[in-house]
Parts: sequence; structure tokens; C-alpha cells
Amino acid sequence: MRELTEGDIEALAIGAAILGTGGGGNPYISKLHCLQELRRGMRVPLIGLDELDDDAFVVSMGGIGAPVVTVEKLQEGREGERAVRALEEFCGRRVTAVIPGEIGGANAIAPIIAAGQIGVGVVDADGMGRAFPEMQMCTFSIYGRRSVPATLTDERGNIVIFREALSEEWIEKLVRASVIAMGGAAVGAEAPMSGRFVKRVSVPGTISQAIALGQIVLDAGRAHANPIERICAHEHGVHLMDAKIVDLKRHLKGGFSVGTIALDGIDMHAGSRAEVVFQNEFLLFRREGRVEVTVPDLIVILDVDTGHAITTDVLRYGQRVAIVALPCHPVLRTPEALAVVGPSAFGFEGVAFQPLPLPNAESLP
Amino acid sequence: MRELTEGDIEALAIGAAILGTGGGGNPYISKLHCLQELRRGMRVPLIGLDELDDDAFVVSMGGIGAPVVTVEKLQEGREGERAVRALEEFCGRRVTAVIPGEIGGANAIAPIIAAGQIGVGVVDADGMGRAFPEMQMCTFSIYGRRSVPATLTDERGNIVIFREALSEEWIEKLVRASVIAMGGAAVGAEAPMSGRFVKRVSVPGTISQAIALGQIVLDAGRAHANPIERICAHEHGVHLMDAKIVDLKRHLKGGFSVGTIALDGIDMHAGSRAEVVFQNEFLLFRREGRVEVTVPDLIVILDVDTGHAITTDVLRYGQRVAIVALPCHPVLRTPEALAVVGPSAFGFEGVAFQPLPLPNAESLP
Repeated sequence: MRELTEGDIEALAIGAAILGTGGGGNPYISKLHCLQELRRGMRVPLIGLDELDDDAFVVSMGGIGAPVVTVEKLQEGREGERAVRALEEFCGRRVTAVIPGEIGGANAIAPIIAAGQIGVGVVDADGMGRAFPEMQMCTFSIYGRRSVPATLTDERGNIVIFREALSEEWIEKLVRASVIAMGGAAVGAEAPMSGRFVKRVSVPGTISQAIALGQIVLDAGRAHANPIERICAHEHGVHLMDAKIVDLKRHLKGGFSVGTIALDGIDMHAGSRAEVVFQNEFLLFRREGRVEVTVPDLIVILDVDTGHAITTDVLRYGQRVAIVALPCHPVLRTPEALAVVGPSAFGFEGVAFQPLPLPNAESLP
Repeated sequence: MRELTEGDIEALAIGAAILGTGGGGNPYISKLHCLQELRRGMRVPLIGLDELDDDAFVVSMGGIGAPVVTVEKLQEGREGERAVRALEEFCGRRVTAVIPGEIGGANAIAPIIAAGQIGVGVVDADGMGRAFPEMQMCTFSIYGRRSVPATLTDERGNIVIFREALSEEWIEKLVRASVIAMGGAAVGAEAPMSGRFVKRVSVPGTISQAIALGQIVLDAGRAHANPIERICAHEHGVHLMDAKIVDLKRHLKGGFSVGTIALDGIDMHAGSRAEVVFQNEFLLFRREGRVEVTVPDLIVILDVDTGHAITTDVLRYGQRVAIVALPCHPVLRTPEALAVVGPSAFGFEGVAFQPLPLPNAESLP
């Protein structure tokens, strides 16, 4: 078990933005916050799944809301601690570790800050292996751990506890209503779990994976090497297209950033047209009208020169981008998982999930 | 301490509808539910404030939502019990009595059912002496008891707990967001209080008052007497106008029934025009453009022949109605109270509260 360093957080912010597939919140502010806490003496052990006690009491947490809101409505700084403490008090049991609900974007860093503030470690794994827009789109929930009890707090100190819900979709609906009332972004803790369960269903090693990915981008920058090819090589990804954003429809709907990005190919892809559909995260890549990649595989939009991810909140007309697809973890490719995070769960009727090839034969953990 | 009878509930439904000033939920369905429970053996003691123990642990409860929704989205039957039990479990202390948050409409009866279901008595008092549309418009809150912790449940069994809030307005905002997510109507329990506090700030004797008022309407009907004059005599009210509803604007906004009723005088008021503005409850009576009565005094719309109250959810074009104003309790006329329940709190800028005369000199309890 090692402690996370400032260098880890710098790399994590880059890697998590990539795995966030446009969402998970812009990691920039969370990174600054985490670095400040580390400089003030905060220590956060990174707990590998093999180091996690079976009887550990683990809480999933992260920000909930529209990414475009999180960059304007800033946090007060102790939201994560407050959400986890409220859940701890509700359950009457001390939390022994925090796990990111999703490794994407700011939500890779928020749990590290919360863990440090309450004085526990963060588990090197998460519930999505990427980011997804809705709470039930999480392996904890997919494989049987209800998200309730869950707590939600905002920068004002409001605290709401979700105690019972008819279904995971009802939790999402009720939590989302509170998030919207809180101004479009809030911080939640949910699904208290045993270490045993976390080991069985989480997407393993994703904090380390995001740090390594960020390091690759940093190294490519220093070496003046092509970051896109290095990212694809590291993640077994496919470089789909280099393009210019020629149209962007983005609006807030039901507390989500939703929209479509129109792309005109550039350089070796000149003359080709494509579009990406998003709901906080990029969901579907369609070229010349034909669907090529969909959730749960990761569609990533990168700055074509730097390899840094472009999140949905900072997309804009004229950006020159590389579109990359990365295969999701097998735990998201089971029939149970595809029912919750596959194309049909997002309303893409008649679109089947065509998995990107995995480096090795698919095998469930 | 006496037990409430079926006859009490029949009268209470009528009296509470009058004190509801259009809101508080249509009491018809709650009455049927309560009668059914009484016939099945439910016993509910009516606890006078003088009989309430100083150390009693009292919880306020009632339905929250738009009256027009409550008549179509029926309850499952144990919502009140569930909300009170959830609050009890959250506080770690047994509830010893239930008090209506508001005596108006269905919310006079819901606490009786909840009290009976959990096996305690109901306090003969409430927090409004009428009905108001928002949670903070309650003497418990006005005189210092925060509404949190509060619980909210619906017919599906969803349970949300509001643990901390920046202000009473924030509780209202957060609870309302959940109510809307639950379909526009839900049941809440809030503001756990000591008996001592309840004795000091509640509006006293309002269950008895509503029963007596209902009895007067029933007696007038049997005697073929004018119910309107008897109601005014009993409540020191003013018979403002007999009129026909000639226009009705009513829509759902932010989870509330809001609108305006246009009235053309009939009989002795022929030729006169007036209007009533409402937000779940009737807020303001304006005749020939001049404001005559406002919140917190009670504006009541009665069937001109039967004296039964017409709630905002069943208002319709062509109804022949009597408009009556009843003075509110002095506890609602203090500067602290008027800041929360006076005309300006509802956005009527420049409208001052002109209190109706009280039977005796005003005195705070």
C-alpha cells in the first residue's frame, strides 16, 4: 500500500479525463483542490484490491450533476467528507475505505480528497471503469448492491439521505431531483459495501490505470511524440478519426448536458463526416450515418496535438480533435451490464453493442 | 382525553376543508380511509394541549403536494405511518404523539390515521390553524423549530430523509423537488418537538374547532338553515360575497396549483366583480380592483347552498359560491409570522395585511 503523491494526482487528472469519455466532471478544479490538501499534509493510501480487507466497510462516492455546471458552481471543499460522514452516521458504522463510483474526470479525484479528509485510504478500483451519466450505471448496482442508503450534500451544507427506493432507477430519479434543486451539481456517497463485494464486482486497478495513462500523455508531451498513438497502444484502443468540430448542439436537460457533435475529418480523414452523441458522456460514434462505436466501450475526444481529453463542458466549435475508442472492461459486457449500460439503456433502439476487441480473450473477473 | 369517533371524522372532514382555504388536500378520500381504519378497530386518542406531557416527543406530519394531484394519484394507505416511523428510526426515539402540520383539508385527517397506525394519540392543535402551501409557513418553524430532520415517502415505498438544510426555504425547495419526482404528491413527517414547545407555539384546539365547524354545517343542513351565516357566526367571520365563478385560470407550477378565480356577484351582490388568487390555498381577495382580505386571514369558498368548502382541485366554471373571510389566530399575526405568511411572502408587493377583527383583543398565547 503506497501513498498517493502530487505527481500521481497530476497524471491522474489527465488519465481520468480520458477515461471520463467527456464526463465525470472537469478534473482541473478537483486536481488543484487535491494538490492543495496534499501540500497541507493530507495523506491518502492507495489500497489495491488484494490489500482490501474482506470485512472493510467501503463507501462509493463522487460528484453528481452536469459537467457544464461544475466548472461554474464551485465546491466549498468538504462536500465529500460531509457526504461520507453523513452515510457513516446513518449506518452507525465507521467507513474504512472510499471507492470512486466512477473513475472518469473529477470523480476520480473527489474520493481521494474525501478519503484523506476522513483519514482513510482509497480503493484502487471503481464502479464504472469510465464515467456514466446515471447512478444505476455502476457495477455495484448491476451486480446486486442497491445504492441506498445514499447521502447527498452541496456547498451550502444541505444534506439529504435516500433511505429506501423502489428501484435503482427511482434512486437516480430522486437523487437527480435533489441535485437539480441544489443548483445542478452536488456530491453523493452511496452503496456501503463489504470489501469482499468490492473485490468481486468493481472494475479493478482503475486509479493506477488512470495515473499510468496520464503519465503516457505527459511523457509523450516531453518527448514530442504522438500522444494519440501512445494512448491507443496503452489502452488497446482504436484511433477512429482526426476531425474538426463543425457543429455543436449542447443543452441542459433534466440536469444533464445532452447534445450532438458534428465532425468533419481532417488530414488523413479529410472528406469524412461523423458525429458523436452525448449525455454528459460520449455515448455513440456514427460515421457517414453508420454506428461504429457505442457505450459501454469508451469514446474519447482528445486534443489532436496534446492528447488531453476534451470534456463535454469545454467542447466548442472549431476544435481540432482526435476521436479514439477504448474497449471497456469485461465486467461491463455481460448481459446484466449491457441491459443497464448498453446502447438500448440510452434509448438507441435497434443499435446493438459491437464490442471492440479486447487484448486477451474476454473473461469475467 | 377522548377517542375520536366516526362522527368526529365525518364532521372533521367538512370543517377541515373550510379551514383549508382551498388547500390541504381534498379530505374526501382521507375521510373514507380513516373511517375504514376506525371500523377495523383503530383507536386514536385526541390529546388536548393541557394533557400533553412536556417531555412528549411529538412529530408533525401531513401530505405535501398539489391538491389537484392528490385526488388522482391515490395513496397506498400506510404512507403516514412509514414517514413517522422513518423519522422515529432516524432520531432513535419513539414518537409519543403526532400533530397535524396543518389543520386544512386532508392534512387534518392524515395525522389521525398515522397516529392510529403507530398506536399513539393525535394532538388537538396544529402548526398553521389553516393550510398554507409551503413547509416553512408553520408556527413550529416560525417560532424556532427547524423542520429538519424530515422524512418523505410515497405510495411506492421510496423514503427520503432531509437531514440538514441551510434554511427553512431550502428544506421547502429540496422537499418540493422530491415531491415532484414522486409524482406531485407525497407524505412527510418533520420537526420532532417536545410537548413543551408544542404547547407554546402551536395553534391550539384546531381539531376540536374543525369538528365543531363541520358539525355546524351538518346541523344547518338538517335544519334547512343558512350554513354561511352560521359558519361566520361561529368563526367570527365576514360573509364577503355570493358569486358565480365566471373564469378560472389554474395550472401546475413548481408542484403547486396556482391561478386566479374571477367572480361575478349574484343575488344581493349582483353587479359586483371580484377575484381570488391562489397557490394551493386562496391567498388574496380583491373586489373591483381593491384588496380586501389577504393571507394569513382565511379566505374560504363555500357552496352557497350547502356551506361545504370548495377546494382548489374541484373549482370549476359556473359554480355558485359564497366567499367568506375568517380571522386567523393571533399567533400568525406577529411580525415574525407575517414575514413568513403575510402577503409579501407570497409576492404581493405593496399589499399590507389588514387584519380582520378578532372576537377579543389580540393576545399572544
